[in-house]
Amino acid sequence: MFAPNGSLTGSIFYNPVKLIFGKDSTSKIGEEIASRGFKRVIITMGGASALKNGSYQQSIDSLKANNVEVVAELRDIRANPEVNKVREGVKLARENQAEAILAIGGGSVIDSSKALSLGAFFDGDVWDVPRATPPVSKRLPIFTVLTISATASEMNNGYVLQDDEKQLKVAYMHPDNFPTVSCIDPSFQTGLPWFQTVNGVVDAMVHTLELYAGADGSEETALQLDEGLLRSLVNCGHGLQKDPENYNLRANVAWAATLALNGYSGFSLRGGSWLVHMIEHALSAIDPAVAHGAGLGVLMPAVIEYLATKIGKKEVYDRWAKNVYGVDGYKAGMEAWVKDLKTWGHPTTMGELGFKKEQIPHIAKLVCDVGCPHGFTPEDVAAVIELAF
Amino acid sequence: MFAPNGSLTGSIFYNPVKLIFGKDSTSKIGEEIASRGFKRVIITMGGASALKNGSYQQSIDSLKANNVEVVAELRDIRANPEVNKVREGVKLARENQAEAILAIGGGSVIDSSKALSLGAFFDGDVWDVPRATPPVSKRLPIFTVLTISATASEMNNGYVLQDDEKQLKVAYMHPDNFPTVSCIDPSFQTGLPWFQTVNGVVDAMVHTLELYAGADGSEETALQLDEGLLRSLVNCGHGLQKDPENYNLRANVAWAATLALNGYSGFSLRGGSWLVHMIEHALSAIDPAVAHGAGLGVLMPAVIEYLATKIGKKEVYDRWAKNVYGVDGYKAGMEAWVKDLKTWGHPTTMGELGFKKEQIPHIAKLVCDVGCPHGFTPEDVAAVIELAF
Ligand SMILES: [Fe+2]
Ligand SMILES: [Fe+2]
Repeated sequence: MFAPNGSLTGSIFYNPVKLIFGKDSTSKIGEEIASRGFKRVIITMGGASALKNGSYQQSIDSLKANNVEVVAELRDIRANPEVNKVREGVKLARENQAEAILAIGGGSVIDSSKALSLGAFFDGDVWDVPRATPPVSKRLPIFTVLTISATASEMNNGYVLQDDEKQLKVAYMHPDNFPTVSCIDPSFQTGLPWFQTVNGVVDAMVHTLELYAGADGSEETALQLDEGLLRSLVNCGHGLQKDPENYNLRANVAWAATLALNGYSGFSLRGGSWLVHMIEHALSAIDPAVAHGAGLGVLMPAVIEYLATKIGKKEVYDRWAKNVYGVDGYKAGMEAWVKDLKTWGHPTTMGELGFKKEQIPHIAKLVCDVGCPHGFTPEDVAAVIELAF
Repeated sequence: MFAPNGSLTGSIFYNPVKLIFGKDSTSKIGEEIASRGFKRVIITMGGASALKNGSYQQSIDSLKANNVEVVAELRDIRANPEVNKVREGVKLARENQAEAILAIGGGSVIDSSKALSLGAFFDGDVWDVPRATPPVSKRLPIFTVLTISATASEMNNGYVLQDDEKQLKVAYMHPDNFPTVSCIDPSFQTGLPWFQTVNGVVDAMVHTLELYAGADGSEETALQLDEGLLRSLVNCGHGLQKDPENYNLRANVAWAATLALNGYSGFSLRGGSWLVHMIEHALSAIDPAVAHGAGLGVLMPAVIEYLATKIGKKEVYDRWAKNVYGVDGYKAGMEAWVKDLKTWGHPTTMGELGFKKEQIPHIAKLVCDVGCPHGFTPEDVAAVIELAF
């Protein structure tokens, strides 16, 4: 998901997103929208943070200066976004003849906007968009103003959406559903609470590691780049713990998080593993209060243990341990992982996330309902989850 | 050149090139051209190598299968391409109403094609395209089949062209002049002569290092990525010396060379330095037989010495030495550089390139006629060149 499923013998790379990065980059968004001929936008956003950090007002000012009208607003998109909110957005966009979407927020706002983009022209319920054949061909162009770096949704063509009632969280990658322009102003992030900062850093690290898991060791360039991304995220994570308002550290995390899932980090790595994400999606489908990054961080070492011992990835993770942490063997790498998470005040066990061992079979079933990767059985998945307790 | 001139506080990233990478990727080129509505292409190419390695025949087969007509061929584009050949191409493309260009070759073929692309619609001599205001707005779409990895021209919007008579070699970056689709089949490169392989590896390393020179040390993500690219190029360079037909090593070099100058390696690095390239351009303007990578490799340590001592880049190059070669201090890094070049049978002095000390003032003048970077005087440039003897 969100990565070319290629190898050194066959990969396609294509990412047409225009990034405007840096201080006050949001001031350009109105011109980017207007110059492409769009006059009527629907704004999508989360809760109060876009109002507090200035991203909303800067966006509005830029739209006004370029005579772009806000015809509707879809507010209060939550973390782990839910399909009902997107249904609301589809209705709003249609009723108000929106010509484009301006997403102001983090991954959940942008993911919801991508579903909305396709749903607006889909003759059916937006939940069924991923199963449309052929894929939905018409879409509302998406512009984004990023306020939390983590998912890289600002520079890829995927989204994740859940249905609380069905306890289902599903990822979908549409070939053309890239944002047209994304503005990344790291200064919006200097005031982020620490736990959100860490969750973003961990999400980006896990994206890199899920992709890294697709290696057989011959992909020297991809592996070197991914180890570089991981070192930068670790270094900047430690830096931000001491100095959370440091603009440069925020900017380095932002760029690394975008690169972690915009196609570059996964190039030639066979699409990666994604087992960590699949299990985490089940956790937040059961309890939407579980932060995505929190679940991922807890599960990562358990997955490494399992991939190293059951699907032959020991050498790959030994290399990771050596090149990212300077330690010998994947087990020492896992220890370094847990140590950093503890230093950062991040949970490291399923118990800390509020889960009980009795729930393991149910979680494993939810994972395999969506699809067990690596030919795993629900029992294999259950064994991974058990390791994380 | 070829890189966003941005920093962590303000950068734009945009690269819409679609890459088709891997074995037999060339077989897709006809469909990529035809599906965009183009029926008449002009082929651009170098000498016999495209005929020998199969890239020409595969391209022709793919065009035929998709009913795309070859209306003209511009053959024998040399290394360090010259403007007269492009003038020929402009004439051919116009006379035959070419709708697109298919470049089959390495950087010089693709660079010439980019000049041709703009020249075909420019009301004046193609040599003057870089000085057109506003920039030339109409262009022939470019498709490429890459046969030598080095310049990254297959995935950027720049070209370098020279005028032998004027002894001028000029780089130009047009905002929209990206190839539409590039096919990279590393198997075309498994039979490359060793000196061409090394020149490509060194060119990619120097691109990364020119960009790296723009750092002030705060750009953790960019620096980690660039160090990763450099390590991969060094490792794969050594690997290819022992095993030149190894497909995976060729593929890793190919991907690293593309990344070295497609905008990623330079993101946030203020456009880099480009002093090495500017001096090398003067060398090959004087003697077109000097291979681009050969000149760069010789000049690199002299430039590092000068940037470290005269423009405050000591810490940056100390970091490079440590993270790429595991040695202390930039001087030890320069020694590692020279040692690798000697191992690879690459020249390491200006004398080996055929230059004499008496030519230093003339070379320095040519450099500064195009434009001295870093506020250097011709005397500073002369001092750098002297160090390379
Ligand atoms: Fe994620
Ligand atoms: Fe070069």
